[in-house]
Amino acid sequence: MMEINEISGVVVHPLKEIVDDRGSILHMLRSDETIFKKFGEIYFSEINPRITKAWKQHKRQTQNIAVPTGKIQLVIYDDRPKSKTRGNVAEYTVGRPNHYRLIHIPPMLWYGFQTLGDQPSLIANCVDQSHDPLEVETISADSDQIPYQWK
Amino acid sequence: MMEINEISGVVVHPLKEIVDDRGSILHMLRSDETIFKKFGEIYFSEINPRITKAWKQHKRQTQNIAVPTGKIQLVIYDDRPKSKTRGNVAEYTVGRPNHYRLIHIPPMLWYGFQTLGDQPSLIANCVDQSHDPLEVETISADSDQIPYQWK
Repeated sequence: MMEINEISGVVVHPLKEIVDDRGSILHMLRSDETIFKKFGEIYFSEINPRITKAWKQHKRQTQNIAVPTGKIQLVIYDDRPKSKTRGNVAEYTVGRPNHYRLIHIPPMLWYGFQTLGDQPSLIANCVDQSHDPLEVETISADSDQIPYQWK
Repeated sequence: MMEINEISGVVVHPLKEIVDDRGSILHMLRSDETIFKKFGEIYFSEINPRITKAWKQHKRQTQNIAVPTGKIQLVIYDDRPKSKTRGNVAEYTVGRPNHYRLIHIPPMLWYGFQTLGDQPSLIANCVDQSHDPLEVETISADSDQIPYQWK
């Protein structure tokens, strides 16, 4: 089951958490799912309380983001010239409890995140290409290029 | 850089943690690494303090295990009839701090784990085939089939 939100190409994919007293099992991504294209790399980004990591844009790489520990606010901005949702900013709560899901972010969108709560969060990112610094653009969180105000 | 330990086919692969005050970046697995074969699934297994999850054997699936949160004791037992290391039991500390690394476990080995410390640990497992309950064997942690005593 998938829901498509207000930025064209972004997919919010609900994920299963199998709760167990010994510790939960948390699904993330399987090769037979429609959002899966190709495996490039899986890595983690920890984000401490009251920290914002923004903004980033990948020219070619697709992101698949889940948050198995903690909870974040993920923000995506669309300035793709030919996009039907150009100019839109979307906010997603991602993590546990209650928002354990995967966000699929195609290339050329701007995104950033902030922790929610007082604990560090762990972001897992399964991308379709290995890291290449030449395909990443970054601008500062308070840049006026993006119509969004981080708290 | 890789080190091969006392169970044939098991690879201990050191992983990079890029420390940052805002939260670390933690590598796990890339498609261009020699230990990478094929992507089947990435999922997480949480393990609470004083819990043992053991024993499991996969007939066909290869496990690639890293621990981005907390620290575990991973134990592997080799009873493969044709293995040069048949009968061996190996213990690995996996997690943070100081032991952030990936353990590559080929099929047909028995393995299990226990948390170290008072916090839950998060185990990330990147396997080469989607989950198939028919290829998994489990026996209880205190089985006398395996010459290892969990604490």
